Formats: sequence, structure tokens, C-alpha cells
Amino acid sequence: MKHARIAYDGAIHHATAMPGDDTRLRLADGRVLRETEVVWLPPVEPRTVFALGLNYADHAKELAFKAPEEPLAFLKGPNTLIGHRAHTVRPAGVAFMHYECELVVVIGKTARNVPREHAYDYVAGYTVANDYAIRDYLENYYRPNLRVKSRDTCTPIGPWLVDRDDVPDPMNLALGTTVNGRVTQEGNTRDMIFDVPALIAWFSSFMTLSPGDMILTGTPEGLADTQPGDEVITEIEGIGRLVSTIVAEEPNKEPA
Amino acid sequence: MKHARIAYDGAIHHATAMPGDDTRLRLADGRVLRETEVVWLPPVEPRTVFALGLNYADHAKELAFKAPEEPLAFLKGPNTLIGHRAHTVRPAGVAFMHYECELVVVIGKTARNVPREHAYDYVAGYTVANDYAIRDYLENYYRPNLRVKSRDTCTPIGPWLVDRDDVPDPMNLALGTTVNGRVTQEGNTRDMIFDVPALIAWFSSFMTLSPGDMILTGTPEGLADTQPGDEVITEIEGIGRLVSTIVAEEPNKEPA
Repeated sequence: MKHARIAYDGAIHHATAMPGDDTRLRLADGRVLRETEVVWLPPVEPRTVFALGLNYADHAKELAFKAPEEPLAFLKGPNTLIGHRAHTVRPAGVAFMHYECELVVVIGKTARNVPREHAYDYVAGYTVANDYAIRDYLENYYRPNLRVKSRDTCTPIGPWLVDRDDVPDPMNLALGTTVNGRVTQEGNTRDMIFDVPALIAWFSSFMTLSPGDMILTGTPEGLADTQPGDEVITEIEGIGRLVSTIVAEEPNKEPA
Repeated sequence: MKHARIAYDGAIHHATAMPGDDTRLRLADGRVLRETEVVWLPPVEPRTVFALGLNYADHAKELAFKAPEEPLAFLKGPNTLIGHRAHTVRPAGVAFMHYECELVVVIGKTARNVPREHAYDYVAGYTVANDYAIRDYLENYYRPNLRVKSRDTCTPIGPWLVDRDDVPDPMNLALGTTVNGRVTQEGNTRDMIFDVPALIAWFSSFMTLSPGDMILTGTPEGLADTQPGDEVITEIEGIGRLVSTIVAEEPNKEPA
């Protein structure tokens, strides 16, 4: 089943996709809505958002790094998350804003010291992220810092949380990005350096993962700059098609 | 006023310190409790926990780094937070577990593009952290990674959130650490490289800070390893005296 978290008619609702038609959602009370009638929120409210750098060998090469020998992981702030069909702000004065299509693993139960062979037992499901990077500040691969990866609105997530059991092989999914209708990034999750079970085993070997935690698993090659006005779609086979539109930052103003 | 979040008699309560006696707490219903009768929780449930590396020049020198030219900031996972008088687990098999006494700034209202001269308007108050570092994995100053700074239970916070207006000059407070009764770290917040207003201005220049967010502002020199059985007290003048006791990690076991 495909689950969404949406705002409609003054409240936040859990919704599910109509069978065979992702453009319509059914609320718990039976109402059926078109995707354009609702405000899409990230499908899960995470406790912690983990992300991976350089987890596809082709992408590491593209950035002129050698592939990491262990996962290169960092945390993202909740300020950066937005839902499907929302606006992402390109910060004023930056040189590079790269989209990054990523498979997101959502944790389903508390995980600590999980062996690789049991890792999928701890997965609730999957969704799609566009983990935009403000590439200006990435001096080297040790520093995926706040200004690169935790900008307000720069991580669209969704549309759907797809149940684990509806994704027979998460390690063989086509994924990619389309900018203004032109395909700019194409890859397959089988090219991850550290696959989903390896990541769950690694994180849980030194810290506790909690239900709702998200792991953004990295992006394949094919980066390009994006500008205000661009419609950017990150899509993963069987998981979802996530749309965001880029807008320019308003002039700096202190809140009243 | 000094505020605490505690668990007692089956519920979580807000409590305040009895005037002139930090060893007793008053609940909203008027009950007065001794500090040893309650379970102390972190005084605030943060949305985001920011931390600074190398924000005291003496400490940067101690680690053989030159002082950073801009704040070196990272995020911490909520899994790492515990309250006053709790147990901190030293991970099995690590070589160095350093305490770090730190002033914590708690944000009071939404902050974006805040100029330095208005920064204190956005502060709710202050508390104390012991931002333990598992120093093994800190290859260089670009990499304050998850295994160094987001271990379960390795960031005691508390005991109190002290209201901003009760701290006339947060940039002139003695702070330090005592291990088993011996003073091992002594410093003063005036030696921060980036002070509290500078940090709020810097973070809010590229992202939104939210009420309850915490900024751990770094530690002065005087690091030393700690071992199971050690009682470690981090204390800041006028803010609080935070006690934690280190225990050994249990053998690895997957949750049932």
C-alpha cells in the first residue's frame, strides 16, 4: 500500500493511493481527492534524518573522489524537509544547486546491532527524496555541512511511503531526475556501494535507529545546476514521482 | 527562574528549582521533591541539536588545529541525549571517550536572518551539556561524525533551563569539569571564538532556527579519557552542575 500525509480542509490526514491510480488519494473517512487538491507533507515525521554521501561509485567518480571504504553519513535538520509539489528555495548568491534523486529507507521498529541478514525486518517502507546540495561549500568529502545539506525547503520527500512488502527488491530499482521535461540523471539502486541492509547494519552497530527515522541512501551520477522556475522531478521505479519547483530566495529580512 | 523536565509518579512534569536551593524541585501542583527522587530528563525536547567544534582557541590548539575562520558546526541525533544524574555508556572497544563541558543556548522563537545586535532576543535560556566525544574516529576537523558525536546516551543535558534574563552576561561564565572529585577542565565562556550572538547570526543567516533548538557552543581545553565507574560533573557558573556516571557497554545483542 502507498501512504501519504497531507493537509486538507483544516487538518492533517493520513491518506492512501487509490489502487492503480497514484493521482487520487483516499482519506480514512472514505473521501477521495485529486492530488492537486491537497497539500502534500513529507509522508513520515522523522525523529532523525540520516543521509549518505558518495554512495554510488559513478557519482563519487563524477565528483573526483575515490569511493569511500565505509559509509559517509551525516544528519539533516528537519527545517530542510518539504512535501511533494512544493516550492524549494534556491538560496540567493550561491553558484551551484544540484538535485539528487535518492531512495529513502524508513525505519519501522527500534534497531540496534542488527545483522545484515535481518535488516529488512526493521524497514517500514520506502519513499523518494530530492536531496538538493548547495555545492559551493563542499570543500571535500569530509564536509557535507549544514550549508550544503540543511537549507530550508531543500529536501523534498514523498509523495508516498510504500510498504516494504510491496517492494520485492529495493536493490534493483531504476531512479533518475527530469528537469523541465528533460532526463538529466539515470541510475539504478543496484549500483549503491553500501546497500540497504549494509546501511542498517552499519548505523545500528553504533547507535539506535527509531521508528520513522529516514536514511537517504545517496544519488547516482548526473548532477546539474538548477535555477528558479525549474520543475524538477525525481522518480524511483515503483516508489514514486516527486515534483518540486524552484523559486528564488526573497531578500533577507529579519522576522518581525 | 530555573526549569526542569522530570519524570515522577508515572508522568512527565515541568518543575522549577526552589529559590536558593537547586537540590529541591517544585511541581506545578505545589509538590516539592528532592533531586534524588526524580528522573531528570533533558530540560527541553529540541527539534534540532547543533554543536560546535573547536570553538575555544585553547582547545583547538590542544587538538593541534588552528582556530577555524568560521563556525565549524554539525548536527547531533536525539538518540544521544539523556538527563542529569543518568548513566552514559562508554562504547565497547573504543580508545578515547573525552568529556566536554559546554554552554547550551536554547532558542526561544523562530529565528531567520537575525543580526548580531538582536540575537539575544531569540534566546529562551541556557543549560549545560557534557558533549562526550569518542575521539577514535575524528580523522580531522572536517569530520565530527556520527560515531564521534551521536552515540546513544553520550550527551547529558541539564539539569536546568535557566531563563535568559537570569544570566546577565553569558559570555563571562566560568565552566569546567570534575572527574571523581578532581578538577580536570577549567575555562571561561569569554574565550569562545564565535560568541553566542555570532552563532545565532551565523546559523540564522542560512537556515531557520526554531523554539527549543539547542546550540552546544564548544568546549575549552583540558580533555581526558573517562572510563566506566567515573563520575563526571560538568558545571557552568550560574547555569548548573550536571552529573553523569559512565558505565560499560553491554555485549552486543540484537533487540528481540
